[in-house]
This record gives sequence, C-alpha cells and structure tokens, in this order.
Amino acid sequence: MKIPITDLRQKVVATFMQNFSEEQSNRIADYLLWADMSGIKTQGIIKMAGTEPLQDIKPQHDITVERDTKLSQLIDAGANPAPLVSQQATDIVIQKAKEHGFAIVGVHNTFSSNGAQAYYAERIAKEDLIGIVMARSPGSVAPFDSLDPLFGTNPVGFAFPTNDDPLVFDMATSAMTWYGLVLAKARDEKIPENMAMDHDGNATTDPSEAMNGALLPFDHGYKGSGMGMVVEIMAGPLAASAYCDCKTFDKEWGATFIAIDPNLLVDVEKFKASCSDMIATIKASRKKPGASEIRLPGERARASYNEAQTSGVVEVDDVILEKLGYL
Amino acid sequence: MKIPITDLRQKVVATFMQNFSEEQSNRIADYLLWADMSGIKTQGIIKMAGTEPLQDIKPQHDITVERDTKLSQLIDAGANPAPLVSQQATDIVIQKAKEHGFAIVGVHNTFSSNGAQAYYAERIAKEDLIGIVMARSPGSVAPFDSLDPLFGTNPVGFAFPTNDDPLVFDMATSAMTWYGLVLAKARDEKIPENMAMDHDGNATTDPSEAMNGALLPFDHGYKGSGMGMVVEIMAGPLAASAYCDCKTFDKEWGATFIAIDPNLLVDVEKFKASCSDMIATIKASRKKPGASEIRLPGERARASYNEAQTSGVVEVDDVILEKLGYL
Repeated sequence: MKIPITDLRQKVVATFMQNFSEEQSNRIADYLLWADMSGIKTQGIIKMAGTEPLQDIKPQHDITVERDTKLSQLIDAGANPAPLVSQQATDIVIQKAKEHGFAIVGVHNTFSSNGAQAYYAERIAKEDLIGIVMARSPGSVAPFDSLDPLFGTNPVGFAFPTNDDPLVFDMATSAMTWYGLVLAKARDEKIPENMAMDHDGNATTDPSEAMNGALLPFDHGYKGSGMGMVVEIMAGPLAASAYCDCKTFDKEWGATFIAIDPNLLVDVEKFKASCSDMIATIKASRKKPGASEIRLPGERARASYNEAQTSGVVEVDDVILEKLGYL
Repeated sequence: MKIPITDLRQKVVATFMQNFSEEQSNRIADYLLWADMSGIKTQGIIKMAGTEPLQDIKPQHDITVERDTKLSQLIDAGANPAPLVSQQATDIVIQKAKEHGFAIVGVHNTFSSNGAQAYYAERIAKEDLIGIVMARSPGSVAPFDSLDPLFGTNPVGFAFPTNDDPLVFDMATSAMTWYGLVLAKARDEKIPENMAMDHDGNATTDPSEAMNGALLPFDHGYKGSGMGMVVEIMAGPLAASAYCDCKTFDKEWGATFIAIDPNLLVDVEKFKASCSDMIATIKASRKKPGASEIRLPGERARASYNEAQTSGVVEVDDVILEKLGYL
C-alpha cells in the first residue's frame, strides 16, 4: 500500500529507538527510506522484516576507529547495523577528502549488508567528489573455472558530480543477488536460467540448489569474475575483513569507501560540466529499435525517488507493514 | 620466428633512437618487449609495424606537467607515444603514493593506445601499492540502448601486491578490441557472433560493418556499459581528455593512474599475506568439469613471460620482423 513518507519515517525511527539512539535511528531511516522511495525494494524497509531484523541487532561494542591518518580510517563496526556504520564511514570519507583531496575508509565486522552502494556513493558525489564504494558479502559466487562459492555478490557503486544530480552507477558483480534466491525460494519459484549452478556445477533454476551451489558472475565469464575478485580484495583484506568465506553470515561483512576530489587533476566545475555534457550526448544518441529512451545508470531510481518526494507517499508491501505492526 | 630477446631489444631501441633519446627508447622497449614476452601479441612490437608506426611519431612538444599537487599530477603528453608517457605517469604515481599513501596521475593528448593496462598496474603493485589504471580510446562501443559508438574500448587494469608476484587483472570493457576488428578485416575474416552491430543496430560478424557501427560492451548489457562509462569519465574528463568522441584517433587518448598504499588501512605485510592466501584458496577450490586447472587473472601472461625470460627467446611474427628490417 501507499503510506505517507513522514508517517513511515516516524514509525521506523521509533522502532530503531528501542535499541539505538535517536540520531542513530535517523541515520538508518535515512538509508532505508531512500531505498524504498527509489524503488529498490529489496534493499529497504524489508531488512526490518526478515529472519534477522536490522532493528533487533545487539552490537558487540561501539563503532571504534582502529587506524586513522589524514587520508584514511579503518573502522571496527562492532557488529553494528551496516547502514549505520556506512553512514558514518561516508561522513568521514567526505570530510577527509574535502580537506586533503582523497580519502579511503575501510569498515569490517558489520552486521549484514549495507544495502545499495549507490546511496553512499551518491552522498559523496553530492559534495563534488567522485565516490567509489565496494562491499563484500559472504561467499556465494564461484570464481571462473571453479565450482566453489568463494566471492560474495560483491556490489560496487560509482558516483560522479555533474551540473545537476550526480551520475550514479551501481551493480552486483554476481548474475543475481542472494536476496533474489531467498525470495524465489520463499515463493517456491524458479530463478531465471544462466544465473547459478548446483553443488556439482550443473546449471540450475532451483533456488535451493543454487544456494547449496554457487551463483555465476554477472557476465558468466572471467571478466565478471575478475571484477568480483577486485571487490573481494578491496572490501576484504584491504578493510581487514573476511574474504573467500561463506561461513560468517553474521559479521565480517566488509566495505570500502573512496572519495576523490576532481580538483586533484582538473577544475571541478569543468569536470562537472563535462559529465553533464557526456550525459546529454548519450541521451541524444540514436536509440536501439524498441528502446523508448536511453536511460543512464541510476536514472530510474532517481525518477522513482523524486516521484515519492513529490507525492509524499511511498509504496511498501502490506506484509512488511503488518509484520512491523505499522498497520 | 623465435628471436633472442637481447637482439630484439637492441634493434627496437636502435629504431626508436632515430626519433627519441636512448632513455626514452629504452622505456618504450621495456613495455613492448614485456607485451610480446607475455604473449600479448596485439599490444607489443606490432605497434611498430602498423599504418602509424610508434617509432615515427613526431610529438607536438615535450611531455609537460599542467597541474602538480602532493597527491596528483596532470600531464599533457604533447602527442608523445602513449607507452612512453604512461611509463612516466607510472613513475610519478608510485613516487607520490610512496610518500603520501595515495596518488593519481592523469594523462591526456597522447598518441594512440598505451597498450595493456596490466603492465603499468603491475609496476605499481611491485612497489607494494595497489595499482588501478584506466585508459579511454576513441569511441567504438555503444552505450546500453544506444546505436552510436560513444565509449572507447576502455580497458582497466588492477594489480595487488602479494607475497609472490602481484595479482594482476585487466580487461577491455568492450566485447572485443578494436585491433581485433582491424586484424579480421585485414585477413578477410568474420568476427565472432554477439560482438558488434552495424550502423543500424543489426547484429553483424563483418568487421567493416562493425567498424562503421559499434562494438558491444563485454557483457552485452547495462553493467558492462556502466563500467565502460566509468572508465570514459575517469580517463576522459578527469584527465582533461576527450570523451564520447570517435574523431580524434591521433590524439586525446586519455589515461589515469591510481596508486593506493594498503598501509592507509592495514599493515601491508598482512595485506599481501591475505592476497596470497586468497589466491591459494581459489586455486585449491573444486574445478569445473573440463577445466585442467583454475587460472587466476594474469597467470597465463606471467607464465609466458617467465618462459621467455628463461629461454632467452621470444616469438615474433616474421612479417613484423621483415617490415622493421630486423631479418
């Protein structure tokens, strides 16, 4: 059903405040509402209604800084909720990059996934910085030529400042998300072909077999596998997190946040104008037969967000609202 | 034929010295010989035997530094040969990152392609830094849903230090290289299916039609297109280079070199050990039926390089040697 955004926000914040401070609850709500308003339903409020609800997390300890330099920070998240920790990491990477031109922040030992990398990357780009955010998750994707699920679904997000909204591109390096498997299994549905293999390496469309086997890289080939490996390293060992590991589903999710000031190389105003010009050039190019328009990455999510913003309401699954006692 | 490496090197250096200094000629030869010894034949000595031989380039002016900060440098290459300029950019990015923990160097206005990004990224990783190198080339790939060749084949290379040789992964973000089209056309051969489309967006296996049309992204989808866009921006506008441009085949090739010291987040020795452990884990995993072994990215090229190093000889096409007067 469609629910007023202010109502939903108030309820979400109240729920989190049973375990977290008001400020923390608001930071988490910022992310969750953004995801639902952007139409990224698998990465939003639904995280409060699963088998391990985000609001019920009991952190091991406060978020602690393990290493701090002018250009960097390594954070032990103390098994706090990943969206909360990622908000903090984003704040820090912005602050340091604004001062010094570049920053990198690594986060390990968070609870579960931080959601869509687009959100954090876009926050960075709104500050006239280039944002690159990567996250590793428990192993579910087989490297090229392997049968074992050694890489996570390992999303990566990029965002670039322009004269208008940032240009944002994010993707999982897997052929489909782990959550897609969970959903298909719960609904007793098949998954599309060419997404996964069973434990012995046979192609499968059965989500349970895929969960016992492995997902494929997004391109089903060595390039996608290589990109998954890059994320596994950058958000694994580089963030003092786990890697090639499919056991620690409750912690050791890692993420790395990078911010680069374009002024290091070119005037940021010129850079932004060039990015806007690039977007215009792509959108004005000849469309493929059958394509109604040429969409840039992130465009659909932003249109959905803006529509929710304007209408003041957001669509949320009744089942989730009921489960959270919001109905 | 197989030719002694020392002989070939001497001849290549002598050829370049007709237009470049001994030091410059050696830097270019370093790259070219590496490519041939690594079995990357399309990116090596062959660049001296095409329609625009690398050794015949008349630069517009010396390589000049346009912006210089602690963490960065922007270079106008003065239409010097891209491998020469990329060697210099790699030197600088290493030097700055060793001192400050991070560096980024942008290069524009080079002559033609700098070859395989793996070479420069690996040089960075040999200094215990993470290397990321991206290059944009004249437009030949259509963005998702577009018919026009607005992105280059836009290769990207990553390299990570380990306890042994660096772990190196590089790829073009296009389904095949431009040079692959040139070669197929010269040999009057078809290209594989699903690589390219003609000017009107129809699938084609004719290299001439593909050259008048566009290549596809490496995954034929929006993720590969998005990765191509990331490289187009990072090595285009961010390096003050051209972008979405298929006219300037003689200059305005852009490249961006990034070096990150793992010590910003974790002890580099721990990082290297983790990367080595990751490689061992992947290689020890269960192989896909039919796979003789699990190869990591870059492994085949390194085996070829080591074999050439050991034997002292390298295989080069007779036609190239003849054209260069080396026979």
